[in-house]
Amino acid sequence: MNSKELSRLLQSLVDGQLTVADGVERLKQLPFEDLGVAQIDHHRELRQGVPEVVLGESKSLEQLKTILTAMARRGGNILVTRLDSEKATVLCSQFPTAEYDVDARTFCLVQQPIEISGQGKVLVVCAGTSDIPVAREATVTARMLGNEVEELVDVGVAGIHRLLARGEQLQKAAVIIVVAGMEGALPSVIGGLVAVPVIAVPTSVGYGAAFGGIAALLGMLNSCASGVTVVNIDNGFGAAFAANRINRKG
Amino acid sequence: MNSKELSRLLQSLVDGQLTVADGVERLKQLPFEDLGVAQIDHHRELRQGVPEVVLGESKSLEQLKTILTAMARRGGNILVTRLDSEKATVLCSQFPTAEYDVDARTFCLVQQPIEISGQGKVLVVCAGTSDIPVAREATVTARMLGNEVEELVDVGVAGIHRLLARGEQLQKAAVIIVVAGMEGALPSVIGGLVAVPVIAVPTSVGYGAAFGGIAALLGMLNSCASGVTVVNIDNGFGAAFAANRINRKG
Amino acid sequence: MNSKELSRLLQSLVDGQLTVADGVERLKQLPFEDLGVAQIDHHRELRQGVPEVVLGESKSLEQLKTILTAMARRGGNILVTRLDSEKATVLCSQFPTAEYDVDARTFCLVQQPIEISGQGKVLVVCAGTSDIPVAREATVTARMLGNEVEELVDVGVAGIHRLLARGEQLQKAAVIIVVAGMEGALPSVIGGLVAVPVIAVPTSVGYGAAFGGIAALLGMLNSCASGVTVVNIDNGFGAAFAANRINRKG
Amino acid sequence: MNSKELSRLLQSLVDGQLTVADGVERLKQLPFEDLGVAQIDHHRELRQGVPEVVLGESKSLEQLKTILTAMARRGGNILVTRLDSEKATVLCSQFPTAEYDVDARTFCLVQQPIEISGQGKVLVVCAGTSDIPVAREATVTARMLGNEVEELVDVGVAGIHRLLARGEQLQKAAVIIVVAGMEGALPSVIGGLVAVPVIAVPTSVGYGAAFGGIAALLGMLNSCASGVTVVNIDNGFGAAFAANRINRKG
Amino acid sequence: MNSKELSRLLQSLVDGQLTVADGVERLKQLPFEDLGVAQIDHHRELRQGVPEVVLGESKSLEQLKTILTAMARRGGNILVTRLDSEKATVLCSQFPTAEYDVDARTFCLVQQPIEISGQGKVLVVCAGTSDIPVAREATVTARMLGNEVEELVDVGVAGIHRLLARGEQLQKAAVIIVVAGMEGALPSVIGGLVAVPVIAVPTSVGYGAAFGGIAALLGMLNSCASGVTVVNIDNGFGAAFAANRINRKG
Amino acid sequence: MNSKELSRLLQSLVDGQLTVADGVERLKQLPFEDLGVAQIDHHRELRQGVPEVVLGESKSLEQLKTILTAMARRGGNILVTRLDSEKATVLCSQFPTAEYDVDARTFCLVQQPIEISGQGKVLVVCAGTSDIPVAREATVTARMLGNEVEELVDVGVAGIHRLLARGEQLQKAAVIIVVAGMEGALPSVIGGLVAVPVIAVPTSVGYGAAFGGIAALLGMLNSCASGVTVVNIDNGFGAAFAANRINRKG
Amino acid sequence: MNSKELSRLLQSLVDGQLTVADGVERLKQLPFEDLGVAQIDHHRELRQGVPEVVLGESKSLEQLKTILTAMARRGGNILVTRLDSEKATVLCSQFPTAEYDVDARTFCLVQQPIEISGQGKVLVVCAGTSDIPVAREATVTARMLGNEVEELVDVGVAGIHRLLARGEQLQKAAVIIVVAGMEGALPSVIGGLVAVPVIAVPTSVGYGAAFGGIAALLGMLNSCASGVTVVNIDNGFGAAFAANRINRKG
Amino acid sequence: MNSKELSRLLQSLVDGQLTVADGVERLKQLPFEDLGVAQIDHHRELRQGVPEVVLGESKSLEQLKTILTAMARRGGNILVTRLDSEKATVLCSQFPTAEYDVDARTFCLVQQPIEISGQGKVLVVCAGTSDIPVAREATVTARMLGNEVEELVDVGVAGIHRLLARGEQLQKAAVIIVVAGMEGALPSVIGGLVAVPVIAVPTSVGYGAAFGGIAALLGMLNSCASGVTVVNIDNGFGAAFAANRINRKG
Repeated sequence: MNSKELSRLLQSLVDGQLTVADGVERLKQLPFEDLGVAQIDHHRELRQGVPEVVLGESKSLEQLKTILTAMARRGGNILVTRLDSEKATVLCSQFPTAEYDVDARTFCLVQQPIEISGQGKVLVVCAGTSDIPVAREATVTARMLGNEVEELVDVGVAGIHRLLARGEQLQKAAVIIVVAGMEGALPSVIGGLVAVPVIAVPTSVGYGAAFGGIAALLGMLNSCASGVTVVNIDNGFGAAFAANRINRKG
Repeated sequence: MNSKELSRLLQSLVDGQLTVADGVERLKQLPFEDLGVAQIDHHRELRQGVPEVVLGESKSLEQLKTILTAMARRGGNILVTRLDSEKATVLCSQFPTAEYDVDARTFCLVQQPIEISGQGKVLVVCAGTSDIPVAREATVTARMLGNEVEELVDVGVAGIHRLLARGEQLQKAAVIIVVAGMEGALPSVIGGLVAVPVIAVPTSVGYGAAFGGIAALLGMLNSCASGVTVVNIDNGFGAAFAANRINRKG
Repeated sequence: MNSKELSRLLQSLVDGQLTVADGVERLKQLPFEDLGVAQIDHHRELRQGVPEVVLGESKSLEQLKTILTAMARRGGNILVTRLDSEKATVLCSQFPTAEYDVDARTFCLVQQPIEISGQGKVLVVCAGTSDIPVAREATVTARMLGNEVEELVDVGVAGIHRLLARGEQLQKAAVIIVVAGMEGALPSVIGGLVAVPVIAVPTSVGYGAAFGGIAALLGMLNSCASGVTVVNIDNGFGAAFAANRINRKG
Repeated sequence: MNSKELSRLLQSLVDGQLTVADGVERLKQLPFEDLGVAQIDHHRELRQGVPEVVLGESKSLEQLKTILTAMARRGGNILVTRLDSEKATVLCSQFPTAEYDVDARTFCLVQQPIEISGQGKVLVVCAGTSDIPVAREATVTARMLGNEVEELVDVGVAGIHRLLARGEQLQKAAVIIVVAGMEGALPSVIGGLVAVPVIAVPTSVGYGAAFGGIAALLGMLNSCASGVTVVNIDNGFGAAFAANRINRKG
Repeated sequence: MNSKELSRLLQSLVDGQLTVADGVERLKQLPFEDLGVAQIDHHRELRQGVPEVVLGESKSLEQLKTILTAMARRGGNILVTRLDSEKATVLCSQFPTAEYDVDARTFCLVQQPIEISGQGKVLVVCAGTSDIPVAREATVTARMLGNEVEELVDVGVAGIHRLLARGEQLQKAAVIIVVAGMEGALPSVIGGLVAVPVIAVPTSVGYGAAFGGIAALLGMLNSCASGVTVVNIDNGFGAAFAANRINRKG
Repeated sequence: MNSKELSRLLQSLVDGQLTVADGVERLKQLPFEDLGVAQIDHHRELRQGVPEVVLGESKSLEQLKTILTAMARRGGNILVTRLDSEKATVLCSQFPTAEYDVDARTFCLVQQPIEISGQGKVLVVCAGTSDIPVAREATVTARMLGNEVEELVDVGVAGIHRLLARGEQLQKAAVIIVVAGMEGALPSVIGGLVAVPVIAVPTSVGYGAAFGGIAALLGMLNSCASGVTVVNIDNGFGAAFAANRINRKG
Repeated sequence: MNSKELSRLLQSLVDGQLTVADGVERLKQLPFEDLGVAQIDHHRELRQGVPEVVLGESKSLEQLKTILTAMARRGGNILVTRLDSEKATVLCSQFPTAEYDVDARTFCLVQQPIEISGQGKVLVVCAGTSDIPVAREATVTARMLGNEVEELVDVGVAGIHRLLARGEQLQKAAVIIVVAGMEGALPSVIGGLVAVPVIAVPTSVGYGAAFGGIAALLGMLNSCASGVTVVNIDNGFGAAFAANRINRKG
Repeated sequence: MNSKELSRLLQSLVDGQLTVADGVERLKQLPFEDLGVAQIDHHRELRQGVPEVVLGESKSLEQLKTILTAMARRGGNILVTRLDSEKATVLCSQFPTAEYDVDARTFCLVQQPIEISGQGKVLVVCAGTSDIPVAREATVTARMLGNEVEELVDVGVAGIHRLLARGEQLQKAAVIIVVAGMEGALPSVIGGLVAVPVIAVPTSVGYGAAFGGIAALLGMLNSCASGVTVVNIDNGFGAAFAANRINRKG
């Protein structure tokens, strides 16, 4: 129920078409989604160029086909994350203009030009080559959400000079997403070098006491650099979404 | 070594007061902190109104006195976090203009007017009254860093209407810090209601399977609201610092 | 040994066919299962329309065939849970009237009309589409146990308005089973909205720090809504069984 | 805003004292708590004899005095949980009619007769004498919420005959709360003996690998008795609240 | 109800003082503890020289006084474990013949000569001097249960020669209790040297990654010596009780 | 070097064929295994009828063939544990007299009659049908080590009457191995019913918060029945080995 | 930028080809890697006979081919670790002089004679045959890094005499790498026997409460032998690298 | 029994004072500690200037007095670690020449000049001022063991320039001990900068998800710098002991 409908309801009350008692009853049952607070959500989905997002991992090929077909009809852009290559092959043949990134495991169907809504550049930094898939998911997501993105790869802390040599690039970013597995130390170093927001993404890269990303996660939560924030293990999508919240602000 | 000193060094080379070999040698030994990348740090500390921060918890009263006396002399503002009330009493008698917040356990010595550098308002929301100390640490920190801050207290998810009634206030914030213990569900609800950056702070409030904040931390890392970022348990300071990184951007 | 047999034993004592010493000996060896306390169990199993339950997961196809054939002969209803589709195909061809639910992974052989013993409706609510299999297991189980069941799907806390819009449905349920993965926050919100019993089921949906359902489990155990109870991760069956204990009460 | 107020608002619209536009505006800002869904909450709190509950643990004596004074004025009953005996002594001298239970650490101020709203008896069973404080918290809470309560103490599974000897008492209960520390096995045995709802409360009783109640918690979550539900470690209050949800049903 | 009482009941049936129906009723209600299975328990407690055991840790001084006074009256021996020295001082003044072991934190009241029921010697070995309290609890318990006990102290694996030098003593034991903290490796070495039963007791000795005994516990559970069994962390009492089960066998 | 060889060495010293200095040198280098302490080991392995044990899990088919061929040549009995059925098929065709137990995953080659060295019966009890593989491994191992073994299956605590009905069988055992997954409560109940040694084996049966056997393991370590000892998760072999240490004692 | 380039820059300043301001600017941007600290790294890689190391596990066959082809062209030695045999077969056909160790899962391409840079022997000791793959990885790595290596296999603590018999070999090593799974006790025993550096490598060998190597890791971190250091679970490569740091010292 | 005593034994055999049989018997019982392998231990303890080490933490004042008095009489140097200041005050008054370091919590009684046995310098680096106590324990220990030690304090990774400015000092060390809490990232950076052995010491500094040093420990075990080894949390003593094993090598 939007404002127009609400006006109509009240008008019919004024017009005597509705008793006060009935009005009270209808208003008490009023779906909350119609009352404004939640409308941001719809607003966002419907705005041109902003993608609808589907988590591919836990859905069957059949489910994905149904969902994507319905979504595609609305004409907006679509981002599917965590889609394995087997399903992707089938979906790409059905949606020939879609692009599948095998590293990021993302499927992008761009039906509308992506409007750049971000104020500055999002920089995605990753510690080792094994962290690239998560970094790439962040990159693809941030781009689909309307941000300019740069990538800086393989600048782990065990070879600190490689990172320091890129000081200027770090300084120019509006938001930095730092992706690292193993001990997850890179966000601490970068957080100490720059003043902009730093979002840390632990990855499940490593073995033994890496515990599938727990070591990196704990490292990042305990960063000695003030004001580093953290998302879930391997959650490149979430980091990009957070970067977008920051970058589009104002 | 700042730019002026570097100029002087190069000039003395041009002037023949220094050989090329000696110049190479001195430049190779040049402390890296002088080379620009790290200067942001100094820049920040020296700029008027921005506080120097001291972690009070692990320092003795003697150490705190020495550090604060030295810092106070430089004339800047000082923020001590996690300071217990016993030490605070002594320090407040030594620094009579300082203010100690017993909830936040923060000690603030403001010697220079705090310049508002943030673009919008930081909103600090907390789930229950027991979460107030962590929320207050965030509030005090964000203010000391030059942000306007509002607080919204006791709007836990078990009484969702109290939160929804404040929808407008949520919508107007530039950055929202959400502080919650127990199951830590509040950031998910708020993250779904607003489009601005949401920083989640798990607290150690709870008992039994709350595991000193682990339950809340995991809840927040797994938030079903996209783009919520998380800081360490009870880390109100870090959340405020991250909010400041975001709010001063641009 | 039932009451009749016990009477007979005592009578033979009275009749002098048994000495007191022999009577003492026989009564000391008396199997406890015959003494009443445990008879509820048999009572339940033998009552018409109540299913016998088999955990399918850890049994071979051969074992399942043997067990089901024996059970089916007794003429009661049978519920097999956690049965994979491969085994189900074979069993369904052997028991053509049985129904296999591929989402719930349940196999139901209904040989007797299911008597509705529940007083009110059991409402199964689930947070996301990925939680549906566990929710469905709860639904199927609750129905087989003789309850009317409704389902409410995809009302996660990140889109709180969708849940609030269904307030009436929540208010009318006799027992609510809430199924959620990731941060597991939904039971807290629902527990705050209703006065009826709420049973929370954490699911293993999620990745990284979801730790296979631990995050959701902890979230639910620490719910800030009073009186929410919890069952094991992915245990839709157990939740329905608990709901049945509640609903058939009186 | 209750129904009466809503009526008044609509009436003033009908009466022309309010324009449709202003009505729309006011209704859009309408606090959700006034719209019915949340009214259960107020309903409950305001109904005679139902207590207001305060978690004593994390509040200072000053805070407790302020809160209790305000609450007491409304004339309802008050339950404070997890209150240490030192604070209790002071509060009892201020509220001379209040009763403090040193085992349960509960403080009860009964200003109105407690109306029995429960349909049957709540039975609180506890495994060992060390579990008594948690059991007692459940007992006191359930009574304050309007239930008849019986207690059955020290019937741990290592002396199974003591439990079996009380079979009749178990069979007659409407809801059973089972409190146990260490391996937490008691709910499994009781869950197998009875058909009524069983709520398991793990306690932090034990040492070493009891891990402050984790062993008991896991034991209960994995109970081989179907349909046992679990609350947080040491959460006697929550178990009683859940029992009350069940017992007052219908 | 013991055999004599059961005889009497049956006799009164034979004598016609009881009808068969009443007999059935009384026997159905018969407390299970009277039926033989559980009598071992009573048997054990009542047999001369075998102690009654009280866990001192979680009981108040008042409770302990009441319990011990009642127990002492029955004339048997009493063992209180985990009793702190403060309470012990008071109890020792009340029971002047009792002995308190400050290391073991055990209180022993021997009112009857302890009959040696064990077939061989129990050897209590401990890795370091810090493990002595737990070892001593095992020693005192085993002695109170009627076993001859020897102790072998400070033979940790980092000085393996000290252990090997005591080979003969190891070979002669009937049961060996091995107490060790830190990495808990000692049971593996001893388990490889002897053929008799080895009971491993992890202690909470250590710091950091010792995790209060978890490291030692895991070490012992994963012992590469076949057939080593383990009890809870710091559970010297339990180890001695298990040793007694073994030693008195036959 | 056995006693005979040592005599020979000393004799050659007495005979003057060896100088004192050379004697010192040879004795200092003397392999410790020759000095008696370790001889039990060899003694055991070489004694007729006692099996050599091979852990099949981590060995390739080639390795197993080589090892078994070498062992078989010595003429003793051989037990391979944790052998999958694929490898077993090949090995059984090579050793046609061997027997493979598909449940226990054990391979037994009996070349010598197994001498019963145990004093009493080992009783292997298991809680549910899913625990049978671990129970069977214990049974097969105990038999190969020379013990009479009985099995008691599917007597879980949720149907306590089934267990109690077998009281006599429990009382007659010399050692009881109790195998249980899920909450692992069975050893507590049995430990309270009998006076003989009880060895608890947690199994990895269960899901969710069973955590692959951790719940059962913790339950058993915290058993409220005194003197229950525990082995590693799924370690039926180890439990049988421990039972053998106990049963052959004296 | 090496010293020569720096000289040239300064010279052009002296020559007037560069202004002081431009010189300051260029020096501020100077990549840190050129300033000496990081050059060790390059130095090492380029020195003859020292291998370049590639982690094979997370790379595709295509990626490996590209990397190895590029590396091979530079003429140095190459070590690929954690390479599965399938990929190895393909790579070995492309690099016919390379050697693949199926146990160690290492691929070695030796194009230059390996110069022995270590001062003493590295001794790799392993507890059980299942630990051999990790031990072998250490051996191969240490050899590729220029160390003489000896191996000592299957000397677990449950048969301590086998280890003691090799005392001399232990005493002669310059560095000892100790590889052990299960309870990980071997480093404690060896650390107590020798004075040289001992590096402990926990392996994931074991099951149940071995928790994939956590038990061994904790055992080693809590070793009662002073000065034992530890690397990650299954990290034979890291242990060898650490041994090389030690052995080439001086 | 040393070589002299062994000679004497053999001589008495040659002299006919001992029969061969008696000689065999005595040699079989020969304490292994006398046979050479273990003598390193004694050798070390007795050599001039090397300290005897006592763990102060778990010992009473009485025990410490007894032990130290006995040790002091032998005339060697003594190091007590983890000694609280209260006990230290008493001990220092008894041993007036001893020195107590309140940061390191070490007590050193130097009765013999400490001989420098290390080949190079041990560098102890620590990340933050809160890590100083652990670093200092390492320093004091390494010095007592005969090493030259330098300290480098407060060079955490969030201000990487401070560390890089000390590159030369890092390059000159023979062994580096790196002490860090929170995310424990410093060893990775240093391990990448230097070629010498790096021993990482996690500290319990931090709060929340630092989990008492687990975050730092995991960070260090997963270091992306090859060949970093790790000791237990807060184990400055162990790190120094390991450094000494390395530094005195050769």
